[in-house]
Amino acid sequence: MRSVYCGALDASNDGQTVKLCGWVHRRRDHGGVIFVDLRDRDGIVQVVFDPDRAEIFNLAESLRNEFVIQVEGRVRLRGAAAINPKMATGEVEVLGTGLTVLNKSKTPPFPLDNYSEVGEDTRLRYRYMDLRRPEMQQKLVFRSKITGYMRRYMEDNGFLDIETPVLTRATPEGARDYLVPSRTHAGSFFALPQSPQLFKQLLMVSGFDRYYQIVKCFRDEDLRADRQPEFTQLDIETSFMSQDQIMEVTENLIRGMFKDLMGVEMPEKFQQMPYAEAMRRFGSDKPDMRISMELVDIDDLLKDVDFKVFSGPANDPKGRVAALKVPGANDKISRKQIDAYTKFVGIYGAKGLAYIKVNDKSDLEKGLQSPIVKFLPETVRQSILDRTGAENGDMIFFGADSFSVVCEALGALRCKLGEDLDMLEKEWAPLWVVDFPMFEETDAGWHAIHHPFTAPVNTDPAALTANPGEAISNAYDMVLNGVELGGGSIRIHDQQLQECVFRLLGISEEEAQEKFGFLLDALQFGAPPHGGLAFGLDRLVMLMTKSDSIREVMAFPKTQSAACPMTAAPGVVDTRQLRELNIRLRKKESDQA
Amino acid sequence: MRSVYCGALDASNDGQTVKLCGWVHRRRDHGGVIFVDLRDRDGIVQVVFDPDRAEIFNLAESLRNEFVIQVEGRVRLRGAAAINPKMATGEVEVLGTGLTVLNKSKTPPFPLDNYSEVGEDTRLRYRYMDLRRPEMQQKLVFRSKITGYMRRYMEDNGFLDIETPVLTRATPEGARDYLVPSRTHAGSFFALPQSPQLFKQLLMVSGFDRYYQIVKCFRDEDLRADRQPEFTQLDIETSFMSQDQIMEVTENLIRGMFKDLMGVEMPEKFQQMPYAEAMRRFGSDKPDMRISMELVDIDDLLKDVDFKVFSGPANDPKGRVAALKVPGANDKISRKQIDAYTKFVGIYGAKGLAYIKVNDKSDLEKGLQSPIVKFLPETVRQSILDRTGAENGDMIFFGADSFSVVCEALGALRCKLGEDLDMLEKEWAPLWVVDFPMFEETDAGWHAIHHPFTAPVNTDPAALTANPGEAISNAYDMVLNGVELGGGSIRIHDQQLQECVFRLLGISEEEAQEKFGFLLDALQFGAPPHGGLAFGLDRLVMLMTKSDSIREVMAFPKTQSAACPMTAAPGVVDTRQLRELNIRLRKKESDQA
Repeated sequence: MRSVYCGALDASNDGQTVKLCGWVHRRRDHGGVIFVDLRDRDGIVQVVFDPDRAEIFNLAESLRNEFVIQVEGRVRLRGAAAINPKMATGEVEVLGTGLTVLNKSKTPPFPLDNYSEVGEDTRLRYRYMDLRRPEMQQKLVFRSKITGYMRRYMEDNGFLDIETPVLTRATPEGARDYLVPSRTHAGSFFALPQSPQLFKQLLMVSGFDRYYQIVKCFRDEDLRADRQPEFTQLDIETSFMSQDQIMEVTENLIRGMFKDLMGVEMPEKFQQMPYAEAMRRFGSDKPDMRISMELVDIDDLLKDVDFKVFSGPANDPKGRVAALKVPGANDKISRKQIDAYTKFVGIYGAKGLAYIKVNDKSDLEKGLQSPIVKFLPETVRQSILDRTGAENGDMIFFGADSFSVVCEALGALRCKLGEDLDMLEKEWAPLWVVDFPMFEETDAGWHAIHHPFTAPVNTDPAALTANPGEAISNAYDMVLNGVELGGGSIRIHDQQLQECVFRLLGISEEEAQEKFGFLLDALQFGAPPHGGLAFGLDRLVMLMTKSDSIREVMAFPKTQSAACPMTAAPGVVDTRQLRELNIRLRKKESDQA
Repeated sequence: MRSVYCGALDASNDGQTVKLCGWVHRRRDHGGVIFVDLRDRDGIVQVVFDPDRAEIFNLAESLRNEFVIQVEGRVRLRGAAAINPKMATGEVEVLGTGLTVLNKSKTPPFPLDNYSEVGEDTRLRYRYMDLRRPEMQQKLVFRSKITGYMRRYMEDNGFLDIETPVLTRATPEGARDYLVPSRTHAGSFFALPQSPQLFKQLLMVSGFDRYYQIVKCFRDEDLRADRQPEFTQLDIETSFMSQDQIMEVTENLIRGMFKDLMGVEMPEKFQQMPYAEAMRRFGSDKPDMRISMELVDIDDLLKDVDFKVFSGPANDPKGRVAALKVPGANDKISRKQIDAYTKFVGIYGAKGLAYIKVNDKSDLEKGLQSPIVKFLPETVRQSILDRTGAENGDMIFFGADSFSVVCEALGALRCKLGEDLDMLEKEWAPLWVVDFPMFEETDAGWHAIHHPFTAPVNTDPAALTANPGEAISNAYDMVLNGVELGGGSIRIHDQQLQECVFRLLGISEEEAQEKFGFLLDALQFGAPPHGGLAFGLDRLVMLMTKSDSIREVMAFPKTQSAACPMTAAPGVVDTRQLRELNIRLRKKESDQA
């Protein structure tokens, strides 16, 4: 029915007779001639119907937006004055000599060009219309290119595409599982996987050596802009490879993808940074390296000042006092903005936001504009200027609280200032964060930072047990522009070490057997050294297409309440169906009264 | 850790120093030397440890089956007498100069070579061991190649890989849905998709033009050998393409795949056969074309005989009497086997299995050995011989019953005889079955043969309504060796025609709005002509690898009761979790008493 896509036409097609199929993007009548912008997946081309061909002209007059038509016509160059440099096909137009209306359209629920005027709920309800917008088309076409590139790369590197189950057992990722009642096993439930973690490890135990899968994962969590109930990851696992080799093979994937699909040259080797350094310098385990500002520790300078807000944390082993110098910010940040930033760091638990505006650093008494400087001796003021390297016109913000609050608050402020003050120095800044701690201490005991299957650098169970807080794991995260693209680790392949880690995490032997018995079994039957990584595909596509929300890069996303306005999912089901599944609805509290 | 895969070594590597990683497949001590068959994903190679290197030799003595080891060594040619032609690497061996035990193994739960002695439950419980068997490795490696080929083909042909939701609304395929209770919408449930049918149609409405996805689908049905709760399909949908074009593009995929991956040359154009012809000639809508035997209608010959078993169906418009001639079967089929075949056709509802052994066709009185021939006049006997073209030594089976029972019984018998008597004339026989009826009549009214979105050839709603039983659909099935590989259709893109089909299927306007309102809406906003197809991936892999069961081509299948003996899924969950999901377990009948 079609000889060529609309968007593919250019001057080289001049004189050709073509058949096009597509949607009426816009119709204009001008100077007795009808112009139709015809749209398909590939782009838009202008079709002209002139009154010479009366029958076709009359039919063309009946066209409305979003009608589906087939056009036969001749490609011709536009006159110089009519060339539209904004259109990819702007040098040509098609003189329509045949026209068939394949389907009509009612007036669209919203004009494609003004989608932003309707709420997202309307766009999701009529998602099939929203997806007609060229921007959405391009995003999903690009997503398809990304997955295509990934698959080719993985296959070229000897990775096997192996499917793991969707109907499985509760996984240990810690988030809430989606459950599926079993009909044949009354009272039992499948869980949808939060990741194929254990299955991919078992595939290594089976000897498949290199596995990958682009796979749906599920988490029943409350949703944020970058979360969805179902999301997709590029899941990778390998045997007999070192951490460096795994990082190299996955780094090459990302580098190659940016080069091939976007023409972006990433560094030949991504920078690697230990977790501890990332927290110290950037207050984050996923620092945005497009911004060069860094946090500077000043605890030692403030131990003895009479200002409790600073001296308290400075003397607390779990506290931190740090400064963030913002070059040339004096003119750019108003009193009002400082109030806004104070509120902003409050989100992260900071109780205030001290600052110094460095007007004249040679005048330690009057050259420093600040509500707190009066609490600091001049020697301390000088030391802070020296330590931060502040110059006249710079501004210094302070954080003084527990280590984690200071990191989170100043880390977030650093990124926000970077955006607000246009301080992004690079377009793309990848980074590996390595040397994560194995565990963090919580009120409920030790908690695995990565997951319970991550191998420690020191694989001696006794050493691990003696000092869990000091243990470093073989985990690694790939960070791009402050976003965690993917994370992975070398896994434990020794059964005793795995049992030791379970014990440290407060998992009883019984619980370990019940939940992970099959893994503990498998580790005793010749498990090879193995490790892997998983990339969040949606987030990666979001980043590469510079989209604001994960919902912009999925064809049929859910709303923030995990519903689909288009299909009205989830929906009510028959009592008969529930009876087959051996469940019933819980009566509401009010009904029970 | 490794320089080369075990299975990759051959004479060209002679003299090279290599590093291998893998599993001890077997260890033999012979003539003071230790031989280890070392296995990895790629194959097995023989490693030799000689006593010259005492330390390594002693370590090698400690090796047991399934230990994971790293070997450093030198490749050398075997002596002529030691060459093992059964091994791909049989011309060489590796002289071990370094040995590291990476992990030990307990005695495996079953010997990999004797897996068939343990039940399938044990194999599934220790699936990670079962998957180590070279046969299983090869099957999953081959499956990965198949999906890789499919994806490249689809992408080369301009198809976009677009993901559709797993958490969705009950779909209309008719099988039982797996349900997922929603936490955020109390009392509501998601359904896991039985196919992405409506979503792929909506993607066409959106203008994506060519879509594909290799996607998991779910059916909560009682399982047979070729069914699993979750299965995978290659799902395809296109716009602006005719049925012939869709068949061509998918046929080329299958042809190319057999050629590239198996070296099999399939016919340049697959045979196409109308449904009615397939039923008449082969008694099946998925005839196995490796067998040339055909059913022959003989109703007209038997209308007037005094034998009710034949004359009844012969005079019934819904009946059928047919003959199946089996060349040269007289000697091959015993009395006992005839009894077995009679039982066999009983499965399909046949009440008996009449037959004639043609010993001497020139003697119509005594030359025909048969319990029924006495009921037939000699003219009829002669006509049957003529119609079937039977020769001396042939055997003729008869079916006389309702049309559907005769088709099913003789259709199945034809395939069984084809296998039993070694009458498969080709290795691969693909076929398109086309011109399916739109509907079949059941006690509950008209039922869609394909699905309710399939377009009729005659798209006039009035004509369809006037005579639904005669309507032919634009549906097509690809059949290979008697197995339905995939099926598809041109879809309805006209809202009124879709409403008409819903009406004919007894779906009320209200029900249609509630279940398919979004589709009916979408069809009014410029839906393009579209159609597609879905291939069952598991079944295709099963066929290509000549496996007996779908479970042999999936990494982690479920048992026939839809359970996983390895992970013990499905499992019991906390009451707390159920409460969050607003459901509770139904008390057993006995508890309620």
